[in-house]
Amino acid sequence: MIHASIVTIGDEILIGQVLDTNSRAIAGALEGMGIHTTRMLSIGDDAQQIEETLLSELSRADIVLTTGGLGPTKDDITKAVLAKVSGSRGYYEHPGQLEMVHKILKSRGLDVLPANLLQAQVPEKAEVIVNRLGTAPIMVFRGLGATGKATLYSLPGVPHEATGALPAVLDDIRAHQPLSPIFHRNIMVYGLAESALSEKIAPWEDALPADMHLAYLPNPLTGIRLRLSCYPESPAEEAEKRMEAQLQALEALLGPLVYATEDSNLETALGRLFKENGLTVSAAESCTGGEIAHLFTSVPGSSAYFLGSVTSYAVSVKEKVLGVPASVIEEKGVVSSEVAAAMAEGVRRLTGSDYAVSTTGLAGPGGDAFNPEGTVWIAAAGPHGTRTQKYVYKNDRKRNIERFSATALDFLRKLLLEDLSI
Amino acid sequence: MIHASIVTIGDEILIGQVLDTNSRAIAGALEGMGIHTTRMLSIGDDAQQIEETLLSELSRADIVLTTGGLGPTKDDITKAVLAKVSGSRGYYEHPGQLEMVHKILKSRGLDVLPANLLQAQVPEKAEVIVNRLGTAPIMVFRGLGATGKATLYSLPGVPHEATGALPAVLDDIRAHQPLSPIFHRNIMVYGLAESALSEKIAPWEDALPADMHLAYLPNPLTGIRLRLSCYPESPAEEAEKRMEAQLQALEALLGPLVYATEDSNLETALGRLFKENGLTVSAAESCTGGEIAHLFTSVPGSSAYFLGSVTSYAVSVKEKVLGVPASVIEEKGVVSSEVAAAMAEGVRRLTGSDYAVSTTGLAGPGGDAFNPEGTVWIAAAGPHGTRTQKYVYKNDRKRNIERFSATALDFLRKLLLEDLSI
Repeated sequence: MIHASIVTIGDEILIGQVLDTNSRAIAGALEGMGIHTTRMLSIGDDAQQIEETLLSELSRADIVLTTGGLGPTKDDITKAVLAKVSGSRGYYEHPGQLEMVHKILKSRGLDVLPANLLQAQVPEKAEVIVNRLGTAPIMVFRGLGATGKATLYSLPGVPHEATGALPAVLDDIRAHQPLSPIFHRNIMVYGLAESALSEKIAPWEDALPADMHLAYLPNPLTGIRLRLSCYPESPAEEAEKRMEAQLQALEALLGPLVYATEDSNLETALGRLFKENGLTVSAAESCTGGEIAHLFTSVPGSSAYFLGSVTSYAVSVKEKVLGVPASVIEEKGVVSSEVAAAMAEGVRRLTGSDYAVSTTGLAGPGGDAFNPEGTVWIAAAGPHGTRTQKYVYKNDRKRNIERFSATALDFLRKLLLEDLSI
Repeated sequence: MIHASIVTIGDEILIGQVLDTNSRAIAGALEGMGIHTTRMLSIGDDAQQIEETLLSELSRADIVLTTGGLGPTKDDITKAVLAKVSGSRGYYEHPGQLEMVHKILKSRGLDVLPANLLQAQVPEKAEVIVNRLGTAPIMVFRGLGATGKATLYSLPGVPHEATGALPAVLDDIRAHQPLSPIFHRNIMVYGLAESALSEKIAPWEDALPADMHLAYLPNPLTGIRLRLSCYPESPAEEAEKRMEAQLQALEALLGPLVYATEDSNLETALGRLFKENGLTVSAAESCTGGEIAHLFTSVPGSSAYFLGSVTSYAVSVKEKVLGVPASVIEEKGVVSSEVAAAMAEGVRRLTGSDYAVSTTGLAGPGGDAFNPEGTVWIAAAGPHGTRTQKYVYKNDRKRNIERFSATALDFLRKLLLEDLSI
């Protein structure tokens, strides 16, 4: 078993202003390859502390991955420490990263400053993986630690650059470490709490063979990802067949709660249904304020089925743009089944889409005279009619908006599945 | 200066299943008291590793705070290690926590199991702060480490229990540690890359007094947060005045690039401008697909100024709903200054808002025959006219959508500021 340490460098994490999301992303990816992360550390922009920590971690782990501490501004001192720890006597300019520095700054319409050029300078002993998302290079140092066998990967700290660097770093690890095989398969589930899901599938889970393990990975926007892992005690091909059989049994147990049999999300799974069936969709949003449209359009190619949406935050927009009758709003209230239905039908008529989904509710903070904070009415409208449903969640504003939006997508998915099976 | 280490105990973090939010909450609270967190660590549920780590951190820091590793299930072995590290010879039952165990389980309608009762057993040397939110006690051990002066606080791992325990833990720290003050101030900047900003303010930054330090905290949606910190070498009041003077000089240097003088974001700062001036706003989005509306409505109270938006993903919606003339789309193309302007003016007319902002572009993957991926035309329309601008970014789809949206908010902010200064 290969052991890893993950080290985050940067004062901003230690003073609690920034949440370290990089370490989790890296640890999750390593775990997927069968590499065990034994320690995560966050330390400050302090040369002595960085050096001490790297030396200590390199003596414990086979792989040390760092993020942060690299950048054009002067509070970045990591590179000097990397030179020292790796026994580099000087620096060299990496042509690939230099080209990338020019390319990135040019594409952003920025001048190339001396501080930017310095970023392409790396310690003598560094191998470089070109960072295509930013100006700081990804550096690899081999042959370190007490055994002389440890490897250090230095990744940028900006989260999208760090996660963007991961695939190349994982490839390098695969090429250099003796990894034992591990298989993962995912099933995406929406609409059950973790405890209820656990109870529902307990008999299946308890009967799993000894070399398989199930993990629950809950997320407000995607529901629960069930990850079945196998460190196979039998030949790979046979193990994959056994996994497939287990997954089919799990799918049968869960029925329409399963929306994908790979790592995915509701907007992608739902988008595929619309695309494959040549259908179009639109949205009318009140309390979700654009999040549903944002989720639909975050999928590449969504213009094939997503026509558009109206965020009707003001009552006047609900009436004037979506054609919700003022009398319905007055009699039933804005947060009501009737208004949700009229919004969905209104945007469907306005855009000419086959299907439409809508939300009207109270994300908080605070409820109103009729409904507590966290209440939402969702409607889904299609060629065979309109359906509405009320949900109540108990979260803060941000989380409520996420839950409302994901629930609306799932509600529409279930209507669409029923229509398609007619 | 008091130094702290924060240690998170639990396998779920090391496999990337759970994001460690406790450490950030604790570090932020400590920083506010002038306590410097020098290290954060996450380690697994392994007795030897826990012992080694606690001994090592207690020899470095004045205060060590742990979260997690306590609970009724069998993988929790932390308490035995705490007994060993503190030199406790046995355990005692804490009556206050025992009462709480009964009370909490009763309120949840659960039976009290032997494993629950064990939670009120604490090592001989532990002082207990009763945990009112869960069954695991908060424990304090004093007189540890090489100097015999270090203190260890053991907090529960469940996030709301950990943050719930913080006030009492901070009170205990205040009562036992000689604290010196620390000050932080933030300035939010949009529209300059980190390197260009650094160069622009270099003379100012270089002239900062020895007890002040500037950090750059970039984020695609919020621009760059400049955080000035001061561990004052002079009386507190005088130090705050010196910081204020430095910040005023920095603001003068940056002019309208500064959008807030506290930790904030564009949608909040812009929302405040609309609210304070009794103005309303709407949005018409193509390539940003709802993200601008989502940003506007993520601010509590945004219904006071944000009327609504139209996501016009399909050309037909641009024409039918927003009234963009088909001839303009045909002649100029969808991604054009003219279409952006017509979209902003269309949604302004449709919703009756004072101002409107719009986007039309290509978030990717892929450009079209006329524009590369990452191109966006932004328009801002108001009572004194409409203004448009083209931007080109080189990121992936998700990041492009974020940059387009933030840039659109900033573009509208600048138009509004000019109008307000007329």
